[in-house]
Amino acid sequence: MKICRFNHDRLGLIEGDAVFDVTAALDALPAVRWPGRPGDPLVGHLDAVLSAARRLRPEAARQALASVALDSPITQPSKVMAAPANYRLHVQQDTKDPGVDHGVHAKALDGVDRPVDKYGLFLKASSSIVGPREGVEIVFPERRTDHEIELGVVIGKPGREIARADAMRHVAGYLIGLDMTVRGVEERSYRKSPDSYTVLGPCLVTADEISDPHALTMSLWVNGTLRQHTSTGSMTVDIPDLIEFASRAYTLHPGDVILTGTPEGVGPVVAGDEVRVACEGIGEMSFKVKPRQVGAG
Amino acid sequence: MKICRFNHDRLGLIEGDAVFDVTAALDALPAVRWPGRPGDPLVGHLDAVLSAARRLRPEAARQALASVALDSPITQPSKVMAAPANYRLHVQQDTKDPGVDHGVHAKALDGVDRPVDKYGLFLKASSSIVGPREGVEIVFPERRTDHEIELGVVIGKPGREIARADAMRHVAGYLIGLDMTVRGVEERSYRKSPDSYTVLGPCLVTADEISDPHALTMSLWVNGTLRQHTSTGSMTVDIPDLIEFASRAYTLHPGDVILTGTPEGVGPVVAGDEVRVACEGIGEMSFKVKPRQVGAG
Repeated sequence: MKICRFNHDRLGLIEGDAVFDVTAALDALPAVRWPGRPGDPLVGHLDAVLSAARRLRPEAARQALASVALDSPITQPSKVMAAPANYRLHVQQDTKDPGVDHGVHAKALDGVDRPVDKYGLFLKASSSIVGPREGVEIVFPERRTDHEIELGVVIGKPGREIARADAMRHVAGYLIGLDMTVRGVEERSYRKSPDSYTVLGPCLVTADEISDPHALTMSLWVNGTLRQHTSTGSMTVDIPDLIEFASRAYTLHPGDVILTGTPEGVGPVVAGDEVRVACEGIGEMSFKVKPRQVGAG
Repeated sequence: MKICRFNHDRLGLIEGDAVFDVTAALDALPAVRWPGRPGDPLVGHLDAVLSAARRLRPEAARQALASVALDSPITQPSKVMAAPANYRLHVQQDTKDPGVDHGVHAKALDGVDRPVDKYGLFLKASSSIVGPREGVEIVFPERRTDHEIELGVVIGKPGREIARADAMRHVAGYLIGLDMTVRGVEERSYRKSPDSYTVLGPCLVTADEISDPHALTMSLWVNGTLRQHTSTGSMTVDIPDLIEFASRAYTLHPGDVILTGTPEGVGPVVAGDEVRVACEGIGEMSFKVKPRQVGAG
């Protein structure tokens, strides 16, 4: 199933070019006061919500997918993790650009087979999450902001010290993630975490619909020009290894997102650009790049 | 007022050596289903909770502070930020220790007046938060884990692009934060984010009780030996500057924590150690360092 959040907190099922409104399925979520359970509430109760959604589907109102505004299906993860430099061609090609490299990255990665082992994962702030409806606001217009398309893995079953052999049983589903990045030498967790620098969507596709998450072609266009176009099969450290690695350090909670790295072809975007992304088995979405709204937030 | 969470999700007011149980004040929190407001629910409704707590106080059950188990008063922040290398003596003295420096930190910080300007802030995973009741579990026993005591600033009023002159109006209060750290060269957001590596407590002291947060002596003992003992007045980038800096990149939500850097004297801890920390105006707490509970989480 493809679950989406649309038109300001309505819950939908995407089927082809249609969205079915199953907002009433949210009644399956318990009302929570304090302190609540860690993790995203929707994913934490996904089975109950999906059961309710299935019952509602036959009578659900239908809208054209193209007519709705999509928000991020994940709203309150305990953390968004990301794998640095997890596609070889990205490291080999993109760091030849001085505007990407900043005199440090290519050198630091020279001879490093699995960058995750050297750097660990990095975090992106939950407050940086938006959906395509909101789009990206350029935070420092005098500096370079790049697009990085990534396959996002959404944790379903919580766990710690998860073995590789068990890892895929902890996956609730997948989505497309944009790891928008200010180029520079600051900590990744800073320059990748401004408001709107994590675009998630268009929906959460449940794991049962993706037979092989390492064989999905991802594509990204800026103003109609193809910039990134690679199979997820090229990732250096694969999904079960990333889950095993992450869960050695920290408990993974429902709704936690692991962004699995970006392939070659990253490049700058500026206010006014229109970005379109697609991933086999998940779908596609478009969003605008906008100037920062001064004082808003 | 000094608000604490104790004995598994009871709410208390600390006065001297006593805790008054005002758990019923949590009724002031709205029950939330989905998607909820970003930020920590308690701090997001702090005025209402404190008003209710004040009404309950005269009839509240009293317990000895020494008899209760303290949890973190902050449970679900949108993010925990921290200022790298924000005390000069810490950089000058501690990075002379090869076990702290790892051949990179002293060199990278050489000649850098304000490390925050070079590195930005870094994030710590919300899933790493514990209170003193739980203590710290050593994640990689073959590597070095250090204690870093810090003053934690808790955001109350949300905001973005907050000017220095307005910054202190966004502070709800203060607490002691332990930025437990695996030494190495990985991203700070990874090696400072394992489960239990952010100890917060003993309580949230409301901002009105701290007349000058830059004049508080912080102290840390390991097994009774004083290891860190410095005034917060020695921090390089002060609290209003940190708030201005942080809010340039991202919206600060209620309950977001800014850890303001650790002073000189960091050092290793191992399973079996007992750590005690104190900060003028806030209080003190002790916690145990334990071996990792295999498979738990």
